Amino acid sequence: MADGKQSSGNNPPAKLVIQQCLSARLQVQPPSDDVEAEYVEIERGVVLYVCFLKGADQDIHVVEKMAKFALNIRLSEALTDSKLVSILDLPGDVLIVPQATLGGKAKGKMMQYHANIPKDTGRELYQKFVELCRDTLASNARTSEANCKVRSGTYGNRQVLSLVTNGPFTHTMEF
Amino acid sequence: MADGKQSSGNNPPAKLVIQQCLSARLQVQPPSDDVEAEYVEIERGVVLYVCFLKGADQDIHVVEKMAKFALNIRLSEALTDSKLVSILDLPGDVLIVPQATLGGKAKGKMMQYHANIPKDTGRELYQKFVELCRDTLASNARTSEANCKVRSGTYGNRQVLSLVTNGPFTHTMEF
Repeated sequence: MADGKQSSGNNPPAKLVIQQCLSARLQVQPPSDDVEAEYVEIERGVVLYVCFLKGADQDIHVVEKMAKFALNIRLSEALTDSKLVSILDLPGDVLIVPQATLGGKAKGKMMQYHANIPKDTGRELYQKFVELCRDTLASNARTSEANCKVRSGTYGNRQVLSLVTNGPFTHTMEF
Repeated sequence: MADGKQSSGNNPPAKLVIQQCLSARLQVQPPSDDVEAEYVEIERGVVLYVCFLKGADQDIHVVEKMAKFALNIRLSEALTDSKLVSILDLPGDVLIVPQATLGGKAKGKMMQYHANIPKDTGRELYQKFVELCRDTLASNARTSEANCKVRSGTYGNRQVLSLVTNGPFTHTMEF
């Protein structure tokens, strides 16, 4: 079969997929015998799927660059007109989903994930990314006045996600 | 602000994002004064977001390569065990969403879509992609016996999408 090429050859250290949503719900704790599943939810905003690859820990700016980009890029339809605004200006919620599969490269009919960062390092970078987004929304006048939320998935867990969109307007980025 | 880099520099003619789903619903006709909105739905399967860029019409194989890849890559969890199988082997449904935003490149705080193919040419390639997927599922023993569906969005329309997943397992590919 034909191989799908994977993005650039020079191994970007981080990948991001952005989808706009009207609401989204992510399971952060699977159900067990004793307890029910736990979920986090957001309303109008963006879902950010993030993946760190080998080398992401060598560039201290990669996490900052990605968070700054994701929160400032103008992809959200303003509530009052059709102008595109950032999630900070909307203002809207943010759901951050760890998504290791973004690091996949096709080999024949299988995907391989050899470029992905070791799990512990990836978890640290992921937590830093989540904290940066939280801090930014908390210190931004519009998002903090509107009580906008940052919610995030559990690194390494299965991501049981439900999404309602008015156009996911999917964008893929590398950093 | 920091610019997000966009994939490879040598302008791939087509982009694909794959997400696994338990069910998905796409509005194919917006509501008007006279009629209600129309939707297409799938059950367990994959959502394929596709985007054609300039030059995609110069390579007669790009649509075939992308369809063959999307239907044969082993990304779906088998129903009987945790083995990964193709959507044809699952067997499962396919929802194809035209997603021109995948062609976006960041310039400052805005995304630009200069690399996207002209709309009429893009629509032709999109329809060819949908037909290829339909033909493949219809001629495959497992998907045809299980009455698996190919559903697709309307090229150029807003994509009002709802998605329920057990892990979207997002993969991004270029062709």
